[in-house]
Amino acid sequence: MMDLGFLHPFFLGPKAENQEFFEQFLLEFLRDHAYWRKNFHPADGNVVPTSAPYRDHYLQFIAAMRKELQELSAELKNAAPFYSPRYIGHMNSDLLLPGVIAEFMTMMYNPNNVAGEAGPATVPRELEVGWQLARMFGYNTDPEMGTTAWGHLTSGGTIANYEGIWNFREVKFYPIALAEAAREMGFDFETVGPERRNLSTYSKWELVNFSVADTVELLAAAKQQITASGMKPNDVKRFKNTIDRETLVGLGGAAFFAKHQEIPPPKVIVPITAHYSWDKALKILGLGLNNLVLVKTDKKMRLRIDHFESLVAQFEQEQVPVLAAVGVLGTTEFSSIDPIDEMVEIREDAYDRGFYFGLHIDAAWGGYMCSLFRREETNQFCEREEVREDLRYFPSQETYDAFKAVADSDSITVDPHKLGYLPYPCGAFVARNMGVIDFISQKASYLYDIKDDRSHKSQIEKLINLGQFILEGSKPGCAAAAAYVTHRVVPLNKHHFGRLVKVTIKQCEYFYAKITALAAELEKKVLIKIPFFPETNIICFAVNVKGNDQLALMNFFGRRVFERLKINRFKPLQMKEFIGSYTSLVKGKISDELAEEVLGDLEINSETFVVDVVDQQREADHIFLFRHSLMSPWLLHRWEGRNYIDRYVDYLRELIEDELVKLSKSRPMEKKVPKADD
Amino acid sequence: MMDLGFLHPFFLGPKAENQEFFEQFLLEFLRDHAYWRKNFHPADGNVVPTSAPYRDHYLQFIAAMRKELQELSAELKNAAPFYSPRYIGHMNSDLLLPGVIAEFMTMMYNPNNVAGEAGPATVPRELEVGWQLARMFGYNTDPEMGTTAWGHLTSGGTIANYEGIWNFREVKFYPIALAEAAREMGFDFETVGPERRNLSTYSKWELVNFSVADTVELLAAAKQQITASGMKPNDVKRFKNTIDRETLVGLGGAAFFAKHQEIPPPKVIVPITAHYSWDKALKILGLGLNNLVLVKTDKKMRLRIDHFESLVAQFEQEQVPVLAAVGVLGTTEFSSIDPIDEMVEIREDAYDRGFYFGLHIDAAWGGYMCSLFRREETNQFCEREEVREDLRYFPSQETYDAFKAVADSDSITVDPHKLGYLPYPCGAFVARNMGVIDFISQKASYLYDIKDDRSHKSQIEKLINLGQFILEGSKPGCAAAAAYVTHRVVPLNKHHFGRLVKVTIKQCEYFYAKITALAAELEKKVLIKIPFFPETNIICFAVNVKGNDQLALMNFFGRRVFERLKINRFKPLQMKEFIGSYTSLVKGKISDELAEEVLGDLEINSETFVVDVVDQQREADHIFLFRHSLMSPWLLHRWEGRNYIDRYVDYLRELIEDELVKLSKSRPMEKKVPKADD
Repeated sequence: MMDLGFLHPFFLGPKAENQEFFEQFLLEFLRDHAYWRKNFHPADGNVVPTSAPYRDHYLQFIAAMRKELQELSAELKNAAPFYSPRYIGHMNSDLLLPGVIAEFMTMMYNPNNVAGEAGPATVPRELEVGWQLARMFGYNTDPEMGTTAWGHLTSGGTIANYEGIWNFREVKFYPIALAEAAREMGFDFETVGPERRNLSTYSKWELVNFSVADTVELLAAAKQQITASGMKPNDVKRFKNTIDRETLVGLGGAAFFAKHQEIPPPKVIVPITAHYSWDKALKILGLGLNNLVLVKTDKKMRLRIDHFESLVAQFEQEQVPVLAAVGVLGTTEFSSIDPIDEMVEIREDAYDRGFYFGLHIDAAWGGYMCSLFRREETNQFCEREEVREDLRYFPSQETYDAFKAVADSDSITVDPHKLGYLPYPCGAFVARNMGVIDFISQKASYLYDIKDDRSHKSQIEKLINLGQFILEGSKPGCAAAAAYVTHRVVPLNKHHFGRLVKVTIKQCEYFYAKITALAAELEKKVLIKIPFFPETNIICFAVNVKGNDQLALMNFFGRRVFERLKINRFKPLQMKEFIGSYTSLVKGKISDELAEEVLGDLEINSETFVVDVVDQQREADHIFLFRHSLMSPWLLHRWEGRNYIDRYVDYLRELIEDELVKLSKSRPMEKKVPKADD
Repeated sequence: MMDLGFLHPFFLGPKAENQEFFEQFLLEFLRDHAYWRKNFHPADGNVVPTSAPYRDHYLQFIAAMRKELQELSAELKNAAPFYSPRYIGHMNSDLLLPGVIAEFMTMMYNPNNVAGEAGPATVPRELEVGWQLARMFGYNTDPEMGTTAWGHLTSGGTIANYEGIWNFREVKFYPIALAEAAREMGFDFETVGPERRNLSTYSKWELVNFSVADTVELLAAAKQQITASGMKPNDVKRFKNTIDRETLVGLGGAAFFAKHQEIPPPKVIVPITAHYSWDKALKILGLGLNNLVLVKTDKKMRLRIDHFESLVAQFEQEQVPVLAAVGVLGTTEFSSIDPIDEMVEIREDAYDRGFYFGLHIDAAWGGYMCSLFRREETNQFCEREEVREDLRYFPSQETYDAFKAVADSDSITVDPHKLGYLPYPCGAFVARNMGVIDFISQKASYLYDIKDDRSHKSQIEKLINLGQFILEGSKPGCAAAAAYVTHRVVPLNKHHFGRLVKVTIKQCEYFYAKITALAAELEKKVLIKIPFFPETNIICFAVNVKGNDQLALMNFFGRRVFERLKINRFKPLQMKEFIGSYTSLVKGKISDELAEEVLGDLEINSETFVVDVVDQQREADHIFLFRHSLMSPWLLHRWEGRNYIDRYVDYLRELIEDELVKLSKSRPMEKKVPKADD
């Protein structure tokens, strides 16, 4: 058994075990803040007189405030107890204390990270968080070693996903705008692009297949060649304005593609398991949901590489640009890991043939798992055996290869407010090539700005007015402080943060074994199946009553069992033994082959899995699954000989047995069978 | 003089005067939270043993954490002291205590308002905040009275602005998609749209000029007529899919406008004073910056209605759709109030002629000023005289009329983290017609869902999975709790929140008088001019040396004076007497007529105001202005006979005199004159 001792000071604790030092820290920094106030022009005296607290209106205000706050406090206690090891539902847990304290302390100062002036301590820390994350992913952050990465925080993964697409779009269609402007100005750029030819000699199709690095270099070459040409300042300005007008952001999608009819609007390729924010991204950015292309998944809920490859081949052949392919590192429902390495390979091969697309990793959930693969001193990627220590299955060779290839992507979404154990809101976007900022900046100074000092200090100076380079505007400096302090105290490598992550994976392996054992034990009465082998730290299973072959009944039975694992805000929380979550495999969203397999294992007639339910007694449009995110790190804590997982599985057995008894006594189908989203 | 007593319990206070009860509340709710934890399955025992705090690794962790936190605390103290009445810079101030305490309390529970399951107490409160704000703006929130508003929080005003445009876009182009799908299905809708004709009889130009209300009604009629027709479920589904495919979000902008070539891509009209997030909106949403149309401003930095009207007429005549016009209620640089009432009128007239556009109010800054115009019991809009009480100029008739017309807009951006005195991040988007959500929802259930219970309770149920209806995904429940509790304790009407707002405006009137007096006093040495009469609570002024007619020197002198009003992170904060901010009127962004007038008053030769600076000794591309946001409510607090504004103006006199002496001794132009953005 793993020693969980290292975790003792990390969290407030399920029983608020660390309350004492938490209080102590909060008071220390609260008072520190208060004395800061008192020490700024002390002679000014008080604006709130010392007599104020004895006045009626003051006391009434305090009383009214207390009433509202107590009501809020009471209602908050009906929420799910994320801090408890008995909460094994969604991707929530107790929070890392360094983050909570830093967040609270900083909130009192209330910095705004939209610009350095409003967040002088926290904007540089936010950029440093970007580099901390980038290093964990294997992106280069050392200016001496060439192109560096950059990253920043967002309100969440959804915004980070939008930024991925937005960045790719502005970079991808820039060469066309530059070529257009150059033609208009009667100027040409020499030995640029992947083939080192004059810009004017590239076809539009070639121009939309420049890589991110090609385009960043193209811009640098353009600056240099314009400067070298001795062009007059007014002409440089006219050049710049022409480019701005001709870009996709200038013209808008409609006018841009109307002007360049040879180039159809671009596609974005994601696995069917991708989060719904990808739908939103295509809609909101005006790219069109019809241009979102879904890739089928395999038996481990990983993107099917053969299908991906054939889609790439198809678009290449049809000369349809692909803006981006998205690999998911830890799907939110199953925590499955897409084959990033194979996606990288296909991407590289395509680029060699002159067909390029960006590769974005949606690691909102799984991003922090990368810490488990990094050595402390050198930040080197670990050997598989090093990672595997103490674990049974993780990482499979496929998973290992996928994690290793993360460094070859162009950009990454990661949510410190998920597996980073930090408070909301804390998402992040990280890009491998900092050069992209010149294409999205609100102040397009790029044709003038030819100085090239790339130290972190000068990078911070360049990015200090952060709102110019990101989707959002005003943003909380306290989130940056929380992430920064946490990453300093619990560094993102296998010896620190990685150990915490490892505990969650270890728990999942144990959980898998226990559920498998329960399945064997109950095999005469029910079929318990784990449809997708849990690669990391989320596990799903389905329960069918032995002898039943109708999906509607299986779902009904599952929901009845689940009823007691679900928060009910009208009943005291204390009545709950454990809290879980569920997910649904929806007809049409899962491939027929895969559904057939899953249902086959459960001895369900796959004909009862339908798009349009006609016979509610038999059919359903979804497959109900129990789902557990094993994020609480205390699940293997044992007392009286049993840990939380043992106890949960015992409880589950009890629930199943109970419902079997009830089922045998009733005709459950008399009730309305709920639909996927109820 | 106003009595500031009512403010005594509102804030922690510039000298942390309310530290005692702040500590007391924080500890109360921290402990309340801790005991909640202890009371969930108490028998489970501790996972952190009581011996843990005596172990080495535990103590090392605490020590490392303290080091990082202390470093953070130290750096935070170099930031601007937002809480102090000596801070009269940007739009920052001390925070309302109910909000800070609610935020802190809720953060410990860490709810996620993406969905009710993750934020059962805070999602309903967030929607309630939307209605609180809507009521303040005069939108209907009573289901009995017809169409109701809805609103929600965002990470900031930037995101809220994007949502405004996004909502308008999806609604505006929906009728075309519906008509297209109906044609394909061989179905027609009867007596719909502004002219109550069959849908098939409308031209595309007419279809893009349906109002928001028309389109919401159209959708309701479509549902009803499809249901009444007895169409088969499969056909209904096919119909629905066809609509989805044909919408702008389905096709994407490029394919949509390629298909409907009669309709050019739409314009968005904003005043030149609009925040740069509007540029970002057009870029990110793929609409194209070239389609952002800027309206000139008048001598009060208000949108010039004649120019606006002529633009509207032009687009109508050219048959170019206008997605939205944006009026700014409190520009971020000058706090000027656009003539919303006249914009409404022009919009209504245009609609009567068959030309429609949405009207969005960017009230990020000024939104909370609306509280000053609402009566307590009835929420009625006050008479001008009621608002004016205690004030000298505010509200001018124009300003009053503008505020009154806010209720006639379609949607509003407001930032509780600005004039709402709440911590970051807390922006908000409010829409007058809740029907818009059917056009932006991620689950397009609209053709089925014909139940029409519109009580708030059922509206909360409908919106409980909030992430389906907004731009963001995961979002902090603590921000919702902070805004909700604050609005409950300090309600949004003239007797509560309005009083706080009034203090800020009163301060500005006093400030105006003092600066005017200073200008008279120093008129032989310098010209001090207030270029734009301060309508609300931000004031700008320029200082020129008497006898100088060159802009470069004026700017240089202003910057030298300002140097001592600026935070310098390498010097102790305590050395600062006052902290201000500045802004620049940039050549090309301000109209030539207006610039001529402003410079004339300052006796500057307007030929020295140029786009491309050649002679740095004389010319500049911007006009430097001192800018003060008077958000701290303590500026009129007086001791030893003088208040903070008196003291600031005295200090300013001193700075000016000092710099005049220095100037007379040197040739300042030997130094490099800085540019607008230095």
